[in-house]
Amino acid sequence: MSKGNINVSVENIFPLIKKFLYSDHEIFLRELISNATDATTKLKHLISIGEAKVEYGNPQIEIKINKDTNTLHIIDQGLGMTAEEVEKYINQIAFSGAEEFLEKYKDDKNETGVIGHFGLGFYSAFMVADKVEIITKSFKDEKAAHWTCDGSPEYTLVEHDKSDRGTEIVLHIAEDSKEFLEDHKITGLLTKYNRFNQIPIKFGTKEESLPLPEDAAEDATPEKVTVDNIINNTNPAWTKKPSDLEDEDYKNFYRELYPMQFEESLFHIHLNVDYPFNLTGILYFPKLSQNLDMQKDKIQLYQNQVFVTDNVEGIVPDFLQMLKGVIDSPDIPLNVSRSYLQADGAVKKISGYITKKVADKLSSLFKNNREDFEAKWNDIKVIIEYGMLSEEKFFDKAKKFALYPSVEDKFYTFEELKEKTKDAQTDKDGNHIILYAANKDAQHSYIQDAKAKGYEVLLLDSPIVSHLMQKLETTEEKVKFTRVDADHIDNLIKKDDTVISKLSDEEKEQLKPMIEENVPKETYTVQLEAMDSDASPFLITVPEFMRRMKEMSATGGGGMMGMGNLPEMYNLVVNTNHPLVSEILNTKTEKKRNRLIKQSFDLAKLSQNLLHGEELTNFIKRSYDLIK
Amino acid sequence: MSKGNINVSVENIFPLIKKFLYSDHEIFLRELISNATDATTKLKHLISIGEAKVEYGNPQIEIKINKDTNTLHIIDQGLGMTAEEVEKYINQIAFSGAEEFLEKYKDDKNETGVIGHFGLGFYSAFMVADKVEIITKSFKDEKAAHWTCDGSPEYTLVEHDKSDRGTEIVLHIAEDSKEFLEDHKITGLLTKYNRFNQIPIKFGTKEESLPLPEDAAEDATPEKVTVDNIINNTNPAWTKKPSDLEDEDYKNFYRELYPMQFEESLFHIHLNVDYPFNLTGILYFPKLSQNLDMQKDKIQLYQNQVFVTDNVEGIVPDFLQMLKGVIDSPDIPLNVSRSYLQADGAVKKISGYITKKVADKLSSLFKNNREDFEAKWNDIKVIIEYGMLSEEKFFDKAKKFALYPSVEDKFYTFEELKEKTKDAQTDKDGNHIILYAANKDAQHSYIQDAKAKGYEVLLLDSPIVSHLMQKLETTEEKVKFTRVDADHIDNLIKKDDTVISKLSDEEKEQLKPMIEENVPKETYTVQLEAMDSDASPFLITVPEFMRRMKEMSATGGGGMMGMGNLPEMYNLVVNTNHPLVSEILNTKTEKKRNRLIKQSFDLAKLSQNLLHGEELTNFIKRSYDLIK
Repeated sequence: MSKGNINVSVENIFPLIKKFLYSDHEIFLRELISNATDATTKLKHLISIGEAKVEYGNPQIEIKINKDTNTLHIIDQGLGMTAEEVEKYINQIAFSGAEEFLEKYKDDKNETGVIGHFGLGFYSAFMVADKVEIITKSFKDEKAAHWTCDGSPEYTLVEHDKSDRGTEIVLHIAEDSKEFLEDHKITGLLTKYNRFNQIPIKFGTKEESLPLPEDAAEDATPEKVTVDNIINNTNPAWTKKPSDLEDEDYKNFYRELYPMQFEESLFHIHLNVDYPFNLTGILYFPKLSQNLDMQKDKIQLYQNQVFVTDNVEGIVPDFLQMLKGVIDSPDIPLNVSRSYLQADGAVKKISGYITKKVADKLSSLFKNNREDFEAKWNDIKVIIEYGMLSEEKFFDKAKKFALYPSVEDKFYTFEELKEKTKDAQTDKDGNHIILYAANKDAQHSYIQDAKAKGYEVLLLDSPIVSHLMQKLETTEEKVKFTRVDADHIDNLIKKDDTVISKLSDEEKEQLKPMIEENVPKETYTVQLEAMDSDASPFLITVPEFMRRMKEMSATGGGGMMGMGNLPEMYNLVVNTNHPLVSEILNTKTEKKRNRLIKQSFDLAKLSQNLLHGEELTNFIKRSYDLIK
Repeated sequence: MSKGNINVSVENIFPLIKKFLYSDHEIFLRELISNATDATTKLKHLISIGEAKVEYGNPQIEIKINKDTNTLHIIDQGLGMTAEEVEKYINQIAFSGAEEFLEKYKDDKNETGVIGHFGLGFYSAFMVADKVEIITKSFKDEKAAHWTCDGSPEYTLVEHDKSDRGTEIVLHIAEDSKEFLEDHKITGLLTKYNRFNQIPIKFGTKEESLPLPEDAAEDATPEKVTVDNIINNTNPAWTKKPSDLEDEDYKNFYRELYPMQFEESLFHIHLNVDYPFNLTGILYFPKLSQNLDMQKDKIQLYQNQVFVTDNVEGIVPDFLQMLKGVIDSPDIPLNVSRSYLQADGAVKKISGYITKKVADKLSSLFKNNREDFEAKWNDIKVIIEYGMLSEEKFFDKAKKFALYPSVEDKFYTFEELKEKTKDAQTDKDGNHIILYAANKDAQHSYIQDAKAKGYEVLLLDSPIVSHLMQKLETTEEKVKFTRVDADHIDNLIKKDDTVISKLSDEEKEQLKPMIEENVPKETYTVQLEAMDSDASPFLITVPEFMRRMKEMSATGGGGMMGMGNLPEMYNLVVNTNHPLVSEILNTKTEKKRNRLIKQSFDLAKLSQNLLHGEELTNFIKRSYDLIK
């Protein structure tokens, strides 16, 4: 038997880093700036606990491009390294740099965020550089060190005359990565990853106008000065205490986060928790928008103010993915698979916490300013309805504040709605019928009929509302949703009083085939009904069950597979008490009678938007003739 | 000055592999099966060149789950390893295993595909296992070796009594990865990654009915036998020569690839190139479908018959992403960023090659069976139009076979169309006007008017066709596209003959304000025009330019930003020669006159589907009264 240690030869670790480690080369800059940030915050910490006896000052991180030498420089004023530390931390591809520090200071519990990916992150430099230099002077009283490596395992380490504290990384950009020597490219990366970095980042300079003195002449031009161009905001709103922020501050941060977004948000939720996990952030409910750019503005995930991704799948519950804003947490594992994320206990807790905070915020908005909540309902309803369908805990909370607007823009909670409609809209079998329309325009005449009866008609027009109705019908006994055009008005909510038919059974038997002859029977079922004499003579209705199944199938209903392909089926309701219907029955000339039926049928189709093409052209011609 | 070697300590390489290397843990099985496949094909190669003097046999790879020991076993009958080779290949995280082999046999040019990711891939086992064993016996006459490692850098290596050639990998599945001990999970992975693996993979057994002997009784039940359950097809269609395949074979492979897809494909393109890059594959043009499942069936990318991804962005041109099928190439770099892919020369050439092959296939289909090509046009037009807009080279080829169908289902090429319509549809200024409709139903009456004049009307209804028109108008001099409802028929293609107006200029001046009073002027511009007396009295037209700009903006037109939000604008064309219009002018009672105008205006709105809600309800009521 032999025993041994696995030996990782270093010739092979560089191609691994270069090809496999990061799918995106551009993150090298984020990694190096994270190291520089760590080096600076670590120094601050050492000073605060008395281990470093130097001035902290106002340190910044400077990024410089030198096109003459094809180099990119990242310069910090952090704790720096001695030659010995360079050997130890840099020459060992190891997490130990950060780990050792963490170990040493782990009792300082308030010290979160100083641990980056030090060590590993540094080597990402070789994804874009064929030679890397480190020039570094420690805060300790030692000579500066100068380390150079061309990506082979060999390096050199010599003394350097650098006199100011901190580290300068020099990347000799490789031929195939020259894009990283362009100002606009680096500006783009800094804006993407580091615009909320904890330490100020300087990239070049800019001109600024000095304020005019108070006694300046009216036509005086302000003096210009050249100042450092600081690209980041080191104290973004989410890192502050909610109590220190005004509503205006949240609005400003929304604009800062999405500068291309001109709509304001509806409201925000400030997330702030440190047990059992660390998480801060601000989520915004956006105004609904068809604007595609708006949909590109997603929730951004940060770790200690460094941008990680805008794919928050698995971290933020699905139904809240349409929100905007920022989440910052050091506790979310990165670079792991989605299935792993979903199984991770901490991540589940984060997702649950966010759901709860959102529900609480909505609930308090509803209670504290109902008018405002109602005004915002149409923008937020899809999110809330989706949440009610996908998370049972959210459903239980949202039931109390989810709104059901009427076609007259009154807003009811479900309890209020039941109370309001219970008496008038309970049918003879004790079913409580909630009437709704999907479109005020398209179902206008049906809505009018229901309103004339004193019924309340809801306007439920969001794409997944049919699933929500289905859910409510199964949880609320005896409650049924019915669209206003599902039947004629007397049948929608059946009461005991029946209208007497002017036509005898004989006459009805005579009438039915006359009508059926003019109506395609594979699509329409003719129903003779005794209704008010001033109701429509002909009426097309769409039975609730089939229609709703088709709708649910279209928006991805479980078990409704294939329903969407069923043919459209309608009822043609003929009002036997309408004078026009009597006229039809009494018209002896077949041709004249059929013309009456066709014109009436066309008018009924019009009110369901079912008259098109040649039929419509012919109808219009016929109608011009009629008015001439 | 000091010099040294960077030292990668191995405690740190395992977490790196576990956390960073692969974003998806499940690929460990693919990697181990790839190693087993390589070990088998390498042996075959060694035998073929006389370096191994053993029987190849019918080797297979077996996958076994043992729930009692919580282990997953991958067993091959390949070349195996001696203890020395285990030390060398496995203990060094190195690509050298494969590289050395490649180096040694690089003169055998016909030997592609034997080089996997040997070495590196093996360590992915530690993503799911907390202990890994290798039991291996080389084809060389040496004792078998047994290597064990628990994920720390320490390992043990002892002799083993395994007597048959090949390697068995034993994974002791970790607590958090127990899912990989479930049959259905492993079946899922094998189906996803290895269903076209080069070497047969056995996973369990299954029962199979033996064929009945010819003289069997009618009610005889076939004898059942237990056979190996081989999960893969080692010779998928794309690896064969096109000349060895019938049309039916391609159809069968489509069904094999997408078993949940019930529609057949329209046609296929067999890709086969070995210079300047290696690529094989079969692409299918699918039938257009609203079925969402269908959209999930994407082109699959393989490397040497091992599934890699179904995200072929950057490799297959955007406009062909809707195709289905398989691409297999060892030359496509994996695990690199999208921007890198797009800049890669080899990948650009692959994309260009695919575009060319598709264009050639379409061209030959058009030439060889035009009738069939026309029948398929509506399913393929969106892809072709998108390609014509996005790739200039494709545009040049597709111009010769892209079709323009008429509302009567005649199909023209652009040249044929120009020839056919040149005489009748050139206006007095020499502009050649191509008329089209977007919807036969919605524009029915306008189409009728154009047909009555002997004009050809195209049916152009794909979503991006407005962009294509724009492009054709700029490349083809004097050609203009105009939708049939852009103006009244005499103005669509202006000829020299003018219709004389029955109304005097004075009467017109009197008429215009009468009409304008009844029409919302922010949306409608009233135009009095002398037309045929039997043309419509009122007509609503939609000017071409604005409408098209709005459409292009909606489908992402460059430079058309914001156009989509402009209000709808229409012309109300009043035919001064229609008797109804004279009647309006001569009606003295204002109330009666306005009723005539309103009813006529409503009818005009109906034919453009612009009458809705309360207006429609009132119109219908009025019309019932009219027929009573």
